[in-house]
Amino acid sequence: MADRSVLVSHIGIAVSDFDTAVNLYKLITGDHDPHITTVSDQRVQVAIFKKSDSEGISGGRVELVSPTDDQSPIAKYISKCGEGLHHLCLYVQDIDEHIKLLQKNAFRMINHVPRVGAEGNRIAFLHPSSSLGVLIELEEIST
Amino acid sequence: MADRSVLVSHIGIAVSDFDTAVNLYKLITGDHDPHITTVSDQRVQVAIFKKSDSEGISGGRVELVSPTDDQSPIAKYISKCGEGLHHLCLYVQDIDEHIKLLQKNAFRMINHVPRVGAEGNRIAFLHPSSSLGVLIELEEIST
Repeated sequence: MADRSVLVSHIGIAVSDFDTAVNLYKLITGDHDPHITTVSDQRVQVAIFKKSDSEGISGGRVELVSPTDDQSPIAKYISKCGEGLHHLCLYVQDIDEHIKLLQKNAFRMINHVPRVGAEGNRIAFLHPSSSLGVLIELEEIST
Repeated sequence: MADRSVLVSHIGIAVSDFDTAVNLYKLITGDHDPHITTVSDQRVQVAIFKKSDSEGISGGRVELVSPTDDQSPIAKYISKCGEGLHHLCLYVQDIDEHIKLLQKNAFRMINHVPRVGAEGNRIAFLHPSSSLGVLIELEEIST
């Protein structure tokens, strides 16, 4: 169950060497037991760091994202921009209404129709040109 | 009172045109009443977006940071790197112990001794070379 009291679902960080990055972020974050998963269609490994006793997904997480092969979008990103802060994911209440509102205000969406993200919630990305260079993911809070 | 259940205190986004950015992020985040403040020693204006009914500071915030003059560190950053995701701030329980632990593990600190941040909590920055290109701020949760 998502924590409704926070705006940020997670921040995504692009990393090349997954194991090295995971060990570094264990020390930085203090979370020595991150959840490790693979998102096959994006060809990435993900390490999810959080500070929560809840068993479900909570907000305010740090997610390391690392390509599993050269064809991954993250591999292409790192090749062009290097490692570092990659995207910002924000919780929204009703993603369909939120997309309509943004489009009405001339924002560009990468996903005009929400798709289901790795954690089962509906998500959609805004184009960075709409948000001053920041790749923003919207994630619908499950009710 | 900080929300102890989240890892991310806030994500800092560097922006050039403060008013334009604030209006864009009101729509993106759905928070139409961000807290606006100035941090004089950093020569920046800050807009804090959050999703919380609490009166105090909660975690998982988005903070737009904009230079008030050309000598601001943020002005220099934007001049070099452009607008976009700038830094990631993580909550820690005991910042002195956390800094000691990181230094013991060969991490480079920008602030070896914590200083008081804009919101009254003790903070310290890690050098991006220690964290795979990410500028990380540590913020001690007030008890």
